[in-house]
Amino acid sequence: MIIILKDHAPKDEVEKLIANIEEMGVSTHIIEGERQTIIGLVGDTSRINEHDVSAHEVVDAVKRVSEPYKMANRKFHPDNTVIPMGSTSIGGEALTMIAGPCSVESEEQIIAVAQAVKESGATMLRGGAFKPRTSPYSFQGLHDEGIQLLLKAKKATGLPIVTEIMSAAHLDLFADVDVIQVGARNMQNFELLKELGHCNKPILLKRGLSSTLEELLMSAEYIMAGGNQQVILCERGIRTFETATRNTLDLSAVPMLKKLTHLPVIIDPSHACGIAWMVEPMARGAVAVGADGLIIEVHNNPQKALCDGKQSITPAAFDQLVKELRPMASLMGRTL
Amino acid sequence: MIIILKDHAPKDEVEKLIANIEEMGVSTHIIEGERQTIIGLVGDTSRINEHDVSAHEVVDAVKRVSEPYKMANRKFHPDNTVIPMGSTSIGGEALTMIAGPCSVESEEQIIAVAQAVKESGATMLRGGAFKPRTSPYSFQGLHDEGIQLLLKAKKATGLPIVTEIMSAAHLDLFADVDVIQVGARNMQNFELLKELGHCNKPILLKRGLSSTLEELLMSAEYIMAGGNQQVILCERGIRTFETATRNTLDLSAVPMLKKLTHLPVIIDPSHACGIAWMVEPMARGAVAVGADGLIIEVHNNPQKALCDGKQSITPAAFDQLVKELRPMASLMGRTL
Amino acid sequence: MIIILKDHAPKDEVEKLIANIEEMGVSTHIIEGERQTIIGLVGDTSRINEHDVSAHEVVDAVKRVSEPYKMANRKFHPDNTVIPMGSTSIGGEALTMIAGPCSVESEEQIIAVAQAVKESGATMLRGGAFKPRTSPYSFQGLHDEGIQLLLKAKKATGLPIVTEIMSAAHLDLFADVDVIQVGARNMQNFELLKELGHCNKPILLKRGLSSTLEELLMSAEYIMAGGNQQVILCERGIRTFETATRNTLDLSAVPMLKKLTHLPVIIDPSHACGIAWMVEPMARGAVAVGADGLIIEVHNNPQKALCDGKQSITPAAFDQLVKELRPMASLMGRTL
Amino acid sequence: MIIILKDHAPKDEVEKLIANIEEMGVSTHIIEGERQTIIGLVGDTSRINEHDVSAHEVVDAVKRVSEPYKMANRKFHPDNTVIPMGSTSIGGEALTMIAGPCSVESEEQIIAVAQAVKESGATMLRGGAFKPRTSPYSFQGLHDEGIQLLLKAKKATGLPIVTEIMSAAHLDLFADVDVIQVGARNMQNFELLKELGHCNKPILLKRGLSSTLEELLMSAEYIMAGGNQQVILCERGIRTFETATRNTLDLSAVPMLKKLTHLPVIIDPSHACGIAWMVEPMARGAVAVGADGLIIEVHNNPQKALCDGKQSITPAAFDQLVKELRPMASLMGRTL
Repeated sequence: MIIILKDHAPKDEVEKLIANIEEMGVSTHIIEGERQTIIGLVGDTSRINEHDVSAHEVVDAVKRVSEPYKMANRKFHPDNTVIPMGSTSIGGEALTMIAGPCSVESEEQIIAVAQAVKESGATMLRGGAFKPRTSPYSFQGLHDEGIQLLLKAKKATGLPIVTEIMSAAHLDLFADVDVIQVGARNMQNFELLKELGHCNKPILLKRGLSSTLEELLMSAEYIMAGGNQQVILCERGIRTFETATRNTLDLSAVPMLKKLTHLPVIIDPSHACGIAWMVEPMARGAVAVGADGLIIEVHNNPQKALCDGKQSITPAAFDQLVKELRPMASLMGRTL
Repeated sequence: MIIILKDHAPKDEVEKLIANIEEMGVSTHIIEGERQTIIGLVGDTSRINEHDVSAHEVVDAVKRVSEPYKMANRKFHPDNTVIPMGSTSIGGEALTMIAGPCSVESEEQIIAVAQAVKESGATMLRGGAFKPRTSPYSFQGLHDEGIQLLLKAKKATGLPIVTEIMSAAHLDLFADVDVIQVGARNMQNFELLKELGHCNKPILLKRGLSSTLEELLMSAEYIMAGGNQQVILCERGIRTFETATRNTLDLSAVPMLKKLTHLPVIIDPSHACGIAWMVEPMARGAVAVGADGLIIEVHNNPQKALCDGKQSITPAAFDQLVKELRPMASLMGRTL
Repeated sequence: MIIILKDHAPKDEVEKLIANIEEMGVSTHIIEGERQTIIGLVGDTSRINEHDVSAHEVVDAVKRVSEPYKMANRKFHPDNTVIPMGSTSIGGEALTMIAGPCSVESEEQIIAVAQAVKESGATMLRGGAFKPRTSPYSFQGLHDEGIQLLLKAKKATGLPIVTEIMSAAHLDLFADVDVIQVGARNMQNFELLKELGHCNKPILLKRGLSSTLEELLMSAEYIMAGGNQQVILCERGIRTFETATRNTLDLSAVPMLKKLTHLPVIIDPSHACGIAWMVEPMARGAVAVGADGLIIEVHNNPQKALCDGKQSITPAAFDQLVKELRPMASLMGRTL
Repeated sequence: MIIILKDHAPKDEVEKLIANIEEMGVSTHIIEGERQTIIGLVGDTSRINEHDVSAHEVVDAVKRVSEPYKMANRKFHPDNTVIPMGSTSIGGEALTMIAGPCSVESEEQIIAVAQAVKESGATMLRGGAFKPRTSPYSFQGLHDEGIQLLLKAKKATGLPIVTEIMSAAHLDLFADVDVIQVGARNMQNFELLKELGHCNKPILLKRGLSSTLEELLMSAEYIMAGGNQQVILCERGIRTFETATRNTLDLSAVPMLKKLTHLPVIIDPSHACGIAWMVEPMARGAVAVGADGLIIEVHNNPQKALCDGKQSITPAAFDQLVKELRPMASLMGRTL
């Protein structure tokens, strides 16, 4: 961490600041420039908040040099995290292929979709039981009944399931769920993250609509600091000024995250673009930039979907997609 | 709601779509253009989700004409909502002036700040007991002890208190709190919003970092749909590309929200800019554009603050600020 | 175009508005809803500006239904535009591979780079002679001397050249240049676009930092409306809140543009990310989503580059990159 | 400037880097941390580009400490720049009040508006002769005829005039114009800025749609580095995700710019919001945060305006606005 002092900062105030910082167990080095003086901090600065240091009267600016996350940091854990999942794993050689409807709607629907996507090559089943909807008047999901139906589909197909949690109060309902998803809107719901840190299940953490990669990693750090090291990161589009797509899919997040962290990174092209026909090209792009997997909305009747039909593809289109992705995966040294 | 059909949409498919829509209880009107056909929907479309309609094969685009929020909509409730608060009210003639530290740190601190800001003219005391921090390694607040200290400060000064909730599981601890705050990161924590809809207390709802005004109003609608009509909206800076300030304070949100909704609107210049010396000019701007109040971070020793000291002003600066704002308030027909 | 009227709009004012619109040669259809009345416009609305119509007292909002661009619109020109270039073409089966330094610095440098990238498989040489720099104190390019050096490199290698124009006043200097580039900062320099519309050379038009795809297409339309149909679109990263990369590369722009327009689309991963090691994964992603080509910064000594060394790759790295891209190109049905 | 080295950077490479930097005339100081080594640069670093230094193999990151602009920097020119204008001045005690139509349309129109706004208290007349329009099919302005009409209006009323330039090639036509405006889309048209640096007229420089304040100041620096110190900065709304207003007016830019620079700062509420009824509250906010003036679109018949009627107010509304602003101006110690 580097502290840039104001011009003509009074010496005694600067000394107080330095004493203050050294109390926190880091040592300081001073560079005196013509116009500006800089203090370099040496040691473990992860507990020092740059905004707080900025409050000192003599401080002009504070710049962090090292990453504020530790457990998620690849520097300290060079090997990829690989999470066993059903007959395969997430973050390993095999691409993770998660497919299923936005919402679980009925037993027939979820089992039909699960069987279809499994046959096509999906490795996990997704389906929303608790649905975060912008409007209180929109369909909110089947809740515990939805989870029961997912478990039936799991039993019928053997596919591990992933579904979204919206409140720690519902955690008991997720006992048999394989991966718990935290949605973009809850990425900084820190109380929920803390609870999930004490839970012994992989967490699929979606990037917030306007969250930086560092903030995403800090949210992963919340879960990991609680003891749960099984975090899967998911880029699902960020909010920008562009209106042609629902969000802007940030595929550069993949190589950047793979450099910064050892955690698996998957892509959700369905929510990112919000348009069914864009799923295929963007899924290809995701594999090409090195993603560890995809999560894709598949609905047996998109036109009748209770939510987000616009971005859902049919089981037949999913089958086609997997076929298209196979040679791409193999080019990237991955199996599918 | 207006549905724009694709060129050459097959007639029978269009008829199916129309039948579908009319089942939902709205009537349809068709405009056939040279290149494009448009269906206009007439009736209550608030339960129809535009993304879902978009999924139909023959649909090119869907555009909403009327606002998706009802209870928060000024069209249906032309009079301002005024919420009684202590000896005054929020949304009435008097400006609401909320002041206090980012975090409650100790009894001495919170009582000293409360007494100082009351004397200067604050109408409410703020202070964080549960703190949403980006890093799990940063100070997270004193939790229930923090709320107890706020209540002591309330007793000592008579100031009503506002403090942030981070999980519905903590709701019992807020029994004696006057206003419950929902932070920007939880603006779309819909499970929390639903719980607060069943609670008989005013809710201070902060705009999310990248939330549109419509989304803010939809989150207010979640609370109101549950039965709680006492919602106060707060603009606290949005996330943009600019780095000179922590966020970009969107003061145009004030007149726009006042037009769209009957709910009170207040401004948080401290979090918006993240810089203590900017609080004063931006507070002036907020009053000038018609805000119903301000929420301002005041700390007796910003340099030693456990969080966000950079943006806190001293009690002396707050006293000065209120003095400066008085003639401005009076010019706007408000009291302070 | 659809016009949504205000509630209770006076009948005579509405009639005036309708008369006004019909004067412009389009016909109108009225839908009367319970709360809102809508006017649908049928005919050629490309000359009607929605902001202007919005100014009418009785108008609440105006929504455009058809695209405001015509010559760039794939609806009216279904076949891909293919631009012959040297021994190959842009927008055809062969991937366009443009490589070269940010700035032309010397004869040795540009010829060395040109020879190296040609050998590796580049189909065009890039190099900046006029450099748009944020600071007036930064190196601004060699200007006409730079163009002369590019022409020498063209002569030495046979590679067609592309270089950026910053003012129509310099157009004479570009007489022997093969493709003229318009940089992101000049995407809406309409006077320059108009001049380039009268010029008989392909134009490489870069998307502005915060330009929507529709605005990019409208800028292409400026050039095409002047008579020059040879426009190549280039996505080079947009400005967002993320700070881990210089800009956010919007790869979803590729399939979306390919749907909206018949013009070729290429990707600039160097400027988008601003980091040399990210060029390779993002170039792979670009090919996978269907881009027609790439433009890549290659410098023989990035550490000594007079500008943007941080994002330049070495000739050896470029050679490696082309080798990596070949099987990916072939998978996409392209040659390289 | 601070250079953060990579872990385990080879000593001889670091020495080369240091030698390189010292060649540029600045001295270096090294801080060795546990994990990271930092080089502090002392001296005039304004000619060193941080992106270029970043290209060195051993460099992890570069952070600038001092501002890259000099002539625009308040640190070196503490006194406000005051530009004489007609019978008053810009940046002095009197608020600058610029009013007029988006486009000059006819002699009757411009003279009528000029007379009306002068009577109400405007200190300058604005009017577009060259209009930057997104679409080539929209009205592009009357060009030289428009400027002639503005000069007639100036003669008739004595109001100094400001109008936008879109190309340096038109500079001769601006000989009798009092202030030349550079529009948002041309803020980084560096060739135009350079030309204006050699011109002896005040320049009204509008902030680009997605330009940071630092970039705005660097564009001012281009003009000033050419010898023209008369630059007026104008905030006119930035591009964000919000769709309720055309752009987001960043009023916090005013106090921040006033701190960073000595140049006058004015606000354009008309373009920022794009909605006529928002001009009044946002103009009030602008005065309250300390703006030196306003530029406002006034049209005698907004519904018939050839461009941007939606955001134009009538002369009567302008008259009312000035009356409302007077007590606010006086509260801020300004005259109007």
